[in-house]
Amino acid sequence: MAILVVGSVAFDSLETPSGKRERVLGGAATHFALAASFFTDVRVVGVVGEDFLPEHEAVLTSKGVDTKGIERAPGKSFHWTGSYVKDMNAAETLATDLNVFAAFEPKIPASYLDSEYLFLANIDPVLQLRVRQQMPGVKMVAGDTMNYWIGAHREKLLPVLRELDVLLINDGEAKMLSGEANGLRAAQGVIALGPKAVVVKHGEYGATMYEAGRAFRAPAMPLGEVVDPTGAGDSFAGGFYGYLASQSELTPETFRTAMFYGSVLGSLACERFGTERLQETTRKEIEDRFHHLKAISHI
Amino acid sequence: MAILVVGSVAFDSLETPSGKRERVLGGAATHFALAASFFTDVRVVGVVGEDFLPEHEAVLTSKGVDTKGIERAPGKSFHWTGSYVKDMNAAETLATDLNVFAAFEPKIPASYLDSEYLFLANIDPVLQLRVRQQMPGVKMVAGDTMNYWIGAHREKLLPVLRELDVLLINDGEAKMLSGEANGLRAAQGVIALGPKAVVVKHGEYGATMYEAGRAFRAPAMPLGEVVDPTGAGDSFAGGFYGYLASQSELTPETFRTAMFYGSVLGSLACERFGTERLQETTRKEIEDRFHHLKAISHI
Repeated sequence: MAILVVGSVAFDSLETPSGKRERVLGGAATHFALAASFFTDVRVVGVVGEDFLPEHEAVLTSKGVDTKGIERAPGKSFHWTGSYVKDMNAAETLATDLNVFAAFEPKIPASYLDSEYLFLANIDPVLQLRVRQQMPGVKMVAGDTMNYWIGAHREKLLPVLRELDVLLINDGEAKMLSGEANGLRAAQGVIALGPKAVVVKHGEYGATMYEAGRAFRAPAMPLGEVVDPTGAGDSFAGGFYGYLASQSELTPETFRTAMFYGSVLGSLACERFGTERLQETTRKEIEDRFHHLKAISHI
Repeated sequence: MAILVVGSVAFDSLETPSGKRERVLGGAATHFALAASFFTDVRVVGVVGEDFLPEHEAVLTSKGVDTKGIERAPGKSFHWTGSYVKDMNAAETLATDLNVFAAFEPKIPASYLDSEYLFLANIDPVLQLRVRQQMPGVKMVAGDTMNYWIGAHREKLLPVLRELDVLLINDGEAKMLSGEANGLRAAQGVIALGPKAVVVKHGEYGATMYEAGRAFRAPAMPLGEVVDPTGAGDSFAGGFYGYLASQSELTPETFRTAMFYGSVLGSLACERFGTERLQETTRKEIEDRFHHLKAISHI
């Protein structure tokens, strides 16, 4: 079943211990869509500027991603400049040039309205809610957010949380959102705000999905070199949600399996700069890594 | 088969967000022995002072632990004062009173010499090596160490590492010992120093066992309240090694299962101050938690 994702399509300038890259294709919706494209149909709603060339669009369309909902606006695309040189686990933002993204008003093409799965990537929660309201018939709604919205715009975020079947965030965000320092209590606190389930990502250690009274942990793949962690969380979300959308029945086992696929796609994303690694991977390689991840975590 | 553990038997004065305790029974060998006692015979070599009363010894002997090798010396037992109020994941040492431990010379009772499994808990590596040399016929040697020995006495530690089948340390210690910031490369760097395998503990996220070319990850149990993390690593080691020693065959599956038992005992230890939780647990409860840990991590 098709996923509609709304979020940023952007360029990233990155520095990590492995090297530097200028203006590589990035953005939450891009990473998510690429990861999910290995499992199901994906439709993107976003906005780009005149610097978004056919070669950039081809990264998505070559994987079957529907880019009809990517609006072109005069000016430049969203551009993020970040560094992981001081700390691989926390990006240091050097510059955020919103450009055309500053006036982003998501417009959903008519052909997207029958999407069964909606993913609200990390954007202004006011826009997330607006998109959610335009898609009343979806089967499932998942989403992401970040410390900026949690801290400075909590009142705008709370109505979004109440719409979510699954919120995917990291440890720090879960603690900030709930006000709880303990991981389990933080997750329970987040669920009390609305989402039916929360997937908390622990970086190099894996991720835990919490529902009322239940937890499931998937390990991360031990990687000898994390070239670029940008987009790893979005790729996790794409693998997780893409797998769910590809299944006809959503059982507890489907969700457990989806956690492992999330981990697979998240680990792949880290192995090269930007979208390079997901562009070249195959479903076969994803299956191999899935089985490897099971082998290193199942007795 | 019997395990001989050499290490500290001590008193701890502790402060955590859950409360304060003065002079509760502690020490690496105590926590390790209690955890391992649920699986196999355990024999302890250590030293205590005149403040170590029959009621303290009974904590061990009531679980069948052999305390013949705990020497009595004039003076007071080792006493550690620590706080987790600022950071649950890193103890702040407020005082270390070595007392009788300062002149500790491990003496192995004749009846201990047939022990098949040796565990060198975190003590001066010179003493670890001396004990190892007195037990030439053991089937397996495992051990622990800490940042103090890695940083200030590396040259004394290196010969111990070459004797080990398994080294159990935490993330920070693995990185410090190897000089590698990446988790996988740190583990490989540690193995290059001698141990056949290294178990790296990740606190609330679990632990990974690395051997040449192979990894296995066990999750930690999500806990709503960590009352006191003191001894959690030693309890992990006791559960892990105790299970191994209880098995007639050491297959890869035995090691994977041992990682889960390590995680079970480590999580139990955190739920009360000092040894309180391990004193009251049962093999039935350990089995239940083992199955729960599988259920929350296996697809």
